[in-house]
Amino acid sequence: MLVVMKRDATKEEIDAVVQRIKEFGITPVPLPGAERTAIGTFGTTSRDAAEAVESLPGVAEVVPVSRPFKLASREVIPSDTTVRIGSVSVGAGHPLAVIAGPCAVESREVTLEAARGVRSAGGSALRGGAYKPRTSPYSFRGMGEEGLEVLAEARDATGLPIVTEVLAPSDVDAVARVADCLQVGARNMQNYSLLDAIGDQPKPVLLKRGMSATVEELLLSAEYVLARGNRNVILCERGIRTFERYTRNTFDVNAIPMLKRLTHLPVIADPSHGTGKWYLVTPVALAAVAAGADGLLIEVHPTPDHALSDGFQSLTIDNFRALMAAVPHVARAIGRTERVAAS
Amino acid sequence: MLVVMKRDATKEEIDAVVQRIKEFGITPVPLPGAERTAIGTFGTTSRDAAEAVESLPGVAEVVPVSRPFKLASREVIPSDTTVRIGSVSVGAGHPLAVIAGPCAVESREVTLEAARGVRSAGGSALRGGAYKPRTSPYSFRGMGEEGLEVLAEARDATGLPIVTEVLAPSDVDAVARVADCLQVGARNMQNYSLLDAIGDQPKPVLLKRGMSATVEELLLSAEYVLARGNRNVILCERGIRTFERYTRNTFDVNAIPMLKRLTHLPVIADPSHGTGKWYLVTPVALAAVAAGADGLLIEVHPTPDHALSDGFQSLTIDNFRALMAAVPHVARAIGRTERVAAS
Amino acid sequence: MLVVMKRDATKEEIDAVVQRIKEFGITPVPLPGAERTAIGTFGTTSRDAAEAVESLPGVAEVVPVSRPFKLASREVIPSDTTVRIGSVSVGAGHPLAVIAGPCAVESREVTLEAARGVRSAGGSALRGGAYKPRTSPYSFRGMGEEGLEVLAEARDATGLPIVTEVLAPSDVDAVARVADCLQVGARNMQNYSLLDAIGDQPKPVLLKRGMSATVEELLLSAEYVLARGNRNVILCERGIRTFERYTRNTFDVNAIPMLKRLTHLPVIADPSHGTGKWYLVTPVALAAVAAGADGLLIEVHPTPDHALSDGFQSLTIDNFRALMAAVPHVARAIGRTERVAAS
Amino acid sequence: MLVVMKRDATKEEIDAVVQRIKEFGITPVPLPGAERTAIGTFGTTSRDAAEAVESLPGVAEVVPVSRPFKLASREVIPSDTTVRIGSVSVGAGHPLAVIAGPCAVESREVTLEAARGVRSAGGSALRGGAYKPRTSPYSFRGMGEEGLEVLAEARDATGLPIVTEVLAPSDVDAVARVADCLQVGARNMQNYSLLDAIGDQPKPVLLKRGMSATVEELLLSAEYVLARGNRNVILCERGIRTFERYTRNTFDVNAIPMLKRLTHLPVIADPSHGTGKWYLVTPVALAAVAAGADGLLIEVHPTPDHALSDGFQSLTIDNFRALMAAVPHVARAIGRTERVAAS
Repeated sequence: MLVVMKRDATKEEIDAVVQRIKEFGITPVPLPGAERTAIGTFGTTSRDAAEAVESLPGVAEVVPVSRPFKLASREVIPSDTTVRIGSVSVGAGHPLAVIAGPCAVESREVTLEAARGVRSAGGSALRGGAYKPRTSPYSFRGMGEEGLEVLAEARDATGLPIVTEVLAPSDVDAVARVADCLQVGARNMQNYSLLDAIGDQPKPVLLKRGMSATVEELLLSAEYVLARGNRNVILCERGIRTFERYTRNTFDVNAIPMLKRLTHLPVIADPSHGTGKWYLVTPVALAAVAAGADGLLIEVHPTPDHALSDGFQSLTIDNFRALMAAVPHVARAIGRTERVAAS
Repeated sequence: MLVVMKRDATKEEIDAVVQRIKEFGITPVPLPGAERTAIGTFGTTSRDAAEAVESLPGVAEVVPVSRPFKLASREVIPSDTTVRIGSVSVGAGHPLAVIAGPCAVESREVTLEAARGVRSAGGSALRGGAYKPRTSPYSFRGMGEEGLEVLAEARDATGLPIVTEVLAPSDVDAVARVADCLQVGARNMQNYSLLDAIGDQPKPVLLKRGMSATVEELLLSAEYVLARGNRNVILCERGIRTFERYTRNTFDVNAIPMLKRLTHLPVIADPSHGTGKWYLVTPVALAAVAAGADGLLIEVHPTPDHALSDGFQSLTIDNFRALMAAVPHVARAIGRTERVAAS
Repeated sequence: MLVVMKRDATKEEIDAVVQRIKEFGITPVPLPGAERTAIGTFGTTSRDAAEAVESLPGVAEVVPVSRPFKLASREVIPSDTTVRIGSVSVGAGHPLAVIAGPCAVESREVTLEAARGVRSAGGSALRGGAYKPRTSPYSFRGMGEEGLEVLAEARDATGLPIVTEVLAPSDVDAVARVADCLQVGARNMQNYSLLDAIGDQPKPVLLKRGMSATVEELLLSAEYVLARGNRNVILCERGIRTFERYTRNTFDVNAIPMLKRLTHLPVIADPSHGTGKWYLVTPVALAAVAAGADGLLIEVHPTPDHALSDGFQSLTIDNFRALMAAVPHVARAIGRTERVAAS
Repeated sequence: MLVVMKRDATKEEIDAVVQRIKEFGITPVPLPGAERTAIGTFGTTSRDAAEAVESLPGVAEVVPVSRPFKLASREVIPSDTTVRIGSVSVGAGHPLAVIAGPCAVESREVTLEAARGVRSAGGSALRGGAYKPRTSPYSFRGMGEEGLEVLAEARDATGLPIVTEVLAPSDVDAVARVADCLQVGARNMQNYSLLDAIGDQPKPVLLKRGMSATVEELLLSAEYVLARGNRNVILCERGIRTFERYTRNTFDVNAIPMLKRLTHLPVIADPSHGTGKWYLVTPVALAAVAAGADGLLIEVHPTPDHALSDGFQSLTIDNFRALMAAVPHVARAIGRTERVAAS
């Protein structure tokens, strides 16, 4: 870390900082400057040391140097990780994985129809929420366990592996018995008891970036799962909250290549939540592929205007088919295999 | 709701929207304008209807009219709610409640010393975290159940009621056995399984606003607890994330009078997290009182430079005593009783 | 517009709103609901009427219905506008325009070397700032008029048309004498005296989105120029400020297809400012092309580590050449001509 | 500065950075760590050096240490600056200055009525815009020079000094002939040609924080004016853009004590724009006073529902009188003189 002293810090204050740093077993190096003194350190610095020093008299600020995430870091694990959802391999240069389906499992009929549509269009896996987090307690909150059974039936009917969200630590076992991949939603990115529970079991997890989370915070949340022993984490950029009102969220396309540089984990894109408007989903999906995404997460509904949630951002099956026709061209344009992963 | 059609919407598209609205049992009223048509509705509109209509051809946008929160709304419950933390009454014009203590319960000694300091300075209740949510899995995460025992001992020693955070639905019972008030932290404001669990038990809850949550989202999260039958909810403004880098968060002082206008629930202020700098805590605490807050939540630590978390934003006991001396003057200046609530 | 009354609005308050709306020559239509009354209007609504009504007793909020921009709107002018920078046509399906060059004109030598590099790599036009807006008054602020002469020489040497920024109304004439296209930077997007001055002359303008501006505000700033009679406006997405700290800005890829839907004006992308990191420029540039951008604005410098500004986000000439080799593949993948516009 | 190298930076890369730093006449100090090497520097570092080094191979990031503002800094000028608006002294513990009046000068009658109301309620100075920056070119943009004459007449009639906005460098002389203080609006905080022009003349300036500007950027914009020789700068917090939709802006109350700590310049608060709702103006104004503001800027209009702009956030004269009655109590509560500055 680097401790920056105030311009008028006294010699006594500087000495006290040097002394306090030594108490943590770290070697301080004072760096007097024209305007003020800074103090660098050799060796690893704990967060606790940084916080302790920050409140000493005469200290202006403390700048960390080490990256706070470890197991998620490409500096620690240089080569790409492959995560398998059922028989589909994601990341590490494997064919693009396209996970598609309705926002919520609303009924057996709609879910099966959507699953068949995704299958016939060439999708890699089926998504659908049996448990739905909703801003209002009065909105439809999902079919729960019955929804899980519907998803299992849809997998049997189509062969598509299943990705579905889990909201509570106590539901992790039940969901993991059915799902091929557990999704952690944006609102739960920093729900640490949930991350702990998911880290304690082996099924892969699709971790969505929080609405206002930074890339570093996303990687630290992944670190929670990795540190418990589950190394099968897929990261998902799904748009962040900004001042823009014409779109629901702002898809952060920068995050795709930035994450690929920082981490060995697979990175996929959710342009449905990332835009909130069905007519923006296809161009933004293609943009994500051009930027290097390892896969896509797309909301598809047979009749979006009758969907119980997120209808406005769902593609019809026909529109999804058109997207699937366009994806290989962009994949090939950036030198990637044009195949989409099949299960 | 108001459905705004696109400028070039056809008569068929307008008719289809009118028809779809009727299917939800709502009466549509077309409003042709110079540029485009809008369609208003009589009667209550469900969210589902709004979402269904939004995706129809020719629709530009759907504007909701009803407030989405009910039990939290002053329009539904006009008179102020009083919430009791142990023997301390909060809200409804009661004396200001000042809840203070260390960020985390780090040890028996430090916690008891802090509690005695808070008591002697005239604080109303003791805060302290036994379970800590931390951005990094490698930071200190709290003493857990042992920390709860320390808090109980501090209450016995000082008579101060206890406010402490709960992170997981499965911990609610254990924490509620000890605590006089359960805190839901900013990261968990939209952790709905936690809100459900807290709504199912009777101990009061101090609900903190999420880092990037709007006032409406805070009220909707309160609605989760209220709708399960627990009406003892205290709202807490604790700063929001902005672009400012000199402070940790931006304390949203507007939210204090805005919430007092929208809801009957008590509203308190946390200037420690709201600023992240100990030297800003006192002026911002006084600002919150001037704006009409019902109480304060203040981080106090005997030796902030040795705190295991949040040392940089904690007041020493002496600085807390100075704040407590200043609060009555500002309370009186705005016509409020100058007493601070005593337990 | 739609005027939403408070739940407890009296009949007198509703009548007063109805009366006030009539004073503006607009027809009000009361819409009583289960919870509250709303009042719609027929016909065009001025902003002044909306603001006047908003402050009447009993009014909860006023929702505008008409889009506030007119000449920029595709609803008013349905077919794409082509803007010509020298001999290069931008927008309306023309070949992609790639405008590249150094952030600032620092010296004759560097500028000519960059221009030749851009030319040889197949760029369409040369960018370079003679007048630089800098956050600090102590940073390099550009070579001024001497810089304009250097740009003119670079155009003579390479045939590339020139795009350069203008900061003050009083400089518009001097810059317009040399430049083929005037750039308005992000900090000046709402500098209305500058927009007026540019609107009063015929040279095309490249208008950059403000750091925290919405898409609607960008279109309203374009409206300033259009309303003065200059219809040659190119819009530029250049990233917005968000909480992310690993990148300088967040490139808003959603804005590309959203703008193409809302307006007939050409839309280009600046991934150099949109990312702030040279190693993200190429993937984000390709993403912008995949999303439908009409062109790119790229910072190129012969020796970025010696640049006087923005070195960290500039491509070397070799890296720019590699980007130019990749662009046609992505353009073709989305069904666009693979040619890049040549001057 | 501190240069942080990548974990896998080679010895050659580190040596190249050391060499490049020396070329700027600065002494580098390598600091090898457990994970990576950092390089500190002795002596003053120019921004240009930091930018040059940032793009070298192996560099992860460059952290500046010196504050970028100088003349605005309390470290350079420790004692408070007093700025005089006509006969009213602002800052340095002088009585609170309350500058009030209509958003825009709409007519002679309304302006004079507002001025008399401000005077009779005890206001210190009159505000009112003759030139108005508006997001839409179709909104009312002010009366221009005729508005300046009306303001001069209002000063003659009431004795109140005049604060009014200037939008363009070419208007500075004309506005400065009439106004006692020139206002730079939020949209123009980074309009550097305007700041230069204002810095070249002696009338004081009230500089408003930009909508999404940081405190540091506000101070750097003040630095532009100070560096040209005009030392009479008043800073104004007027709310920042956030995700909150119930208020127009979020008043950043933290900024008041933070600015008082960082700079010797007077700091005032504009709760009218800071909230955008007239019913929040009084509590937030009192909060700003409690936080240590040196003055207030308040929109007052005889009949807000007939105002041509910002009616929804204007106080009536009666409400302003009530605010003026409350201000002295809060000022006294924090140990400040309870008098409001009179002209």
